[in-house]
Amino acid sequence: MDESKRSFLKRIAGLLAASGVMGAAPRRGVAAEPPDVPPWMKAPGAGMREYGMPATYEAKVTRTLIRSQPGTTGSGASRTPLEALDGMITPAGLHFERHHSGVPDIDPAQHRLLLHGLVQRPLIFTVDALLRYPMVSRVHFLECSGNSQLLYQPAPPALTAGQTHGLVSCSEWTGVPLRLLLEEAGVDRAAGWILAEGADAAAMSRSIPMAKALDDAIVALFQNGERLRPENGYPVRLFLPGWEGNMSVKWLRRLKVVAAPVMTKDETSRYTDLQAGGTSLMFTYPMEVKSVITRPSHGMTLSGAGPYEITGIAWSGRGTIRRVEVSVDGGRAWMEAGLAAPVLPRALTRFRLPWRWDGRAAVLKSRATDDTGAVQPERAAFIAEHGHNAIFHFHAIQAWGVAASGEVKHVYA
Amino acid sequence: MDESKRSFLKRIAGLLAASGVMGAAPRRGVAAEPPDVPPWMKAPGAGMREYGMPATYEAKVTRTLIRSQPGTTGSGASRTPLEALDGMITPAGLHFERHHSGVPDIDPAQHRLLLHGLVQRPLIFTVDALLRYPMVSRVHFLECSGNSQLLYQPAPPALTAGQTHGLVSCSEWTGVPLRLLLEEAGVDRAAGWILAEGADAAAMSRSIPMAKALDDAIVALFQNGERLRPENGYPVRLFLPGWEGNMSVKWLRRLKVVAAPVMTKDETSRYTDLQAGGTSLMFTYPMEVKSVITRPSHGMTLSGAGPYEITGIAWSGRGTIRRVEVSVDGGRAWMEAGLAAPVLPRALTRFRLPWRWDGRAAVLKSRATDDTGAVQPERAAFIAEHGHNAIFHFHAIQAWGVAASGEVKHVYA
Repeated sequence: MDESKRSFLKRIAGLLAASGVMGAAPRRGVAAEPPDVPPWMKAPGAGMREYGMPATYEAKVTRTLIRSQPGTTGSGASRTPLEALDGMITPAGLHFERHHSGVPDIDPAQHRLLLHGLVQRPLIFTVDALLRYPMVSRVHFLECSGNSQLLYQPAPPALTAGQTHGLVSCSEWTGVPLRLLLEEAGVDRAAGWILAEGADAAAMSRSIPMAKALDDAIVALFQNGERLRPENGYPVRLFLPGWEGNMSVKWLRRLKVVAAPVMTKDETSRYTDLQAGGTSLMFTYPMEVKSVITRPSHGMTLSGAGPYEITGIAWSGRGTIRRVEVSVDGGRAWMEAGLAAPVLPRALTRFRLPWRWDGRAAVLKSRATDDTGAVQPERAAFIAEHGHNAIFHFHAIQAWGVAASGEVKHVYA
Repeated sequence: MDESKRSFLKRIAGLLAASGVMGAAPRRGVAAEPPDVPPWMKAPGAGMREYGMPATYEAKVTRTLIRSQPGTTGSGASRTPLEALDGMITPAGLHFERHHSGVPDIDPAQHRLLLHGLVQRPLIFTVDALLRYPMVSRVHFLECSGNSQLLYQPAPPALTAGQTHGLVSCSEWTGVPLRLLLEEAGVDRAAGWILAEGADAAAMSRSIPMAKALDDAIVALFQNGERLRPENGYPVRLFLPGWEGNMSVKWLRRLKVVAAPVMTKDETSRYTDLQAGGTSLMFTYPMEVKSVITRPSHGMTLSGAGPYEITGIAWSGRGTIRRVEVSVDGGRAWMEAGLAAPVLPRALTRFRLPWRWDGRAAVLKSRATDDTGAVQPERAAFIAEHGHNAIFHFHAIQAWGVAASGEVKHVYA
């Protein structure tokens, strides 16, 4: 065990000793040796399954579905229940969704990816052909640029961490570096842009800068070890690490190398950022440095004074999380949280801070800093700059108020 | 983009250029611009789901179930389909299973963990109490000590990579360091051992050395972000990084601090290693350095000469994978494979090597080395040392034969 771990555990043990234990003493006469045998030990358990599912007792841990178009079932977004999760990885079944016209049912044997435009050799790839290429695996978050959009509102919505911040998830993505396909096609590097088009009924389309395509863009086939899920682009999606989610075009069917941005509907009528002064920002790609405390958070109730862990997630589309600070007094004093290794670029980073709650009202905040030096702003300063009209790229500090009763609620503070 | 990545991509691009492209030219008159519109773009797709599942086209990617006790459904093992996966993480639905009397259906509100024996303060923990403790998150493999046991046989079984090696999986595990609970109970550090008992009908029980318990043992509550799956110990399991899987007792209900190993049925009649000479090894904890090529592998057929990627997984219970070498001529010449970052201690490590198949018969092998300097042995040397009678801890080099027809089969070579 290394020194940093030893020192961490020592600090925790001291805190627990100072705070009283949380394990209860066995009730007299009950905790015989061995203890009472529960009913599930008295008969053989259930059989094995070809594909496992969560425990029935966790049936409430689901994505929160919000349909954006009345009368449709597949247009809208579903959010990851962040408050029920821990660690860095999001299970694929709970990865957020954002669809513009539902989830297409694509036969992988029939699917084709066309690479054309300003290239020497237009190419068509089958999924089987893509599976023969050298691949890379990378753990990255994906965040919808509309994540936390309700927090532009003047009053704090009574929502959980997942409902306010659950349009971010994190997976291990595996696929072919886009650069390899572009080089095989003989791309004109002076071209500057690539149109990426999805095979959904909305033909979701964005213009991608060539520099990103040649840097770290992935034509992804696997997510968390298995093939992509349908709602995440099966059988093949584009993945642009750190950039707003809609640019990582799902169900990828076409890449057209072009000289200038195509100005698709999805980058003009949507995914532009209306500012307080009435102007709009376009092509705002990287997701900014951000964090949220997931436990304790809105909707939970602390069961009395004593030791707790404050934990949450931090991320930055511009690089690697360097520091997360936590405040329990609304931002007057800050303490540095521990970061769970490995801390990876453009990935969710789990932070943790042991906390002894004294039973009085408290306001919990987290503040992330990335390795470019960018610091997550306070909400008041962020709103003063961007106003209330925007929808996308909200990344200010989130606050949870803890009442003396133990109830935790979303507050602006 | 850093230099190592640039150099990797350059090497790959050169290989592809030398080998001919895999993307096909568009058929004349077919690839109009835009290309033919597939049927799934002509109507809105399916709705969002509260909990997602794999594509129906991937329905064959399941665990392989083998029941070890006739007439039971829950005693036996199911294997991860390694040949269909990529990356480092195993999705929880495909994590291998090994049960001694099925999967208990445990109500987390009723479950208790008793910590007693040679401690100053016996303690009982509810699941809610455990959730208040400081936690750690770590990516680790878990391997059943019986993994690859059929390879002790004199003739090579006609089995896929998952069927021979699928009793290993890798997850991000999150939970409370066991050390914290032991210190809270006032453990007698001179005690030496801890009995860990599961709440299944087999009361699966093992004796754990105190040194491991105080080092990196975790009382795990989360797997890949969400709460443990039932078949992996819901609501709480022990997790001992790098050690044979059965010691990471699932459905953990009791930890008794004791002076000496308890000699439970599970460490005497089972999980001992019968050697060629008739003696048995007991308490063989760490899983040895090991690797397997997952693609191409038994059951696949290469679709003609040309470029392919050889990829697989490597792991060691004693530390971190330092090197994986690949041979395509049965072990005469070896090439160093690339390792996918992050390379983590006691975690699956994905290796990759681009390969141009010349269309002639080939024998593929991988050989892993860990940071203790341990090297995966050839099968002949391993069998010469351990004989054919053992069941557990097989970790020799695996070979796949590629025929001129492209068919890939398990071979001893």
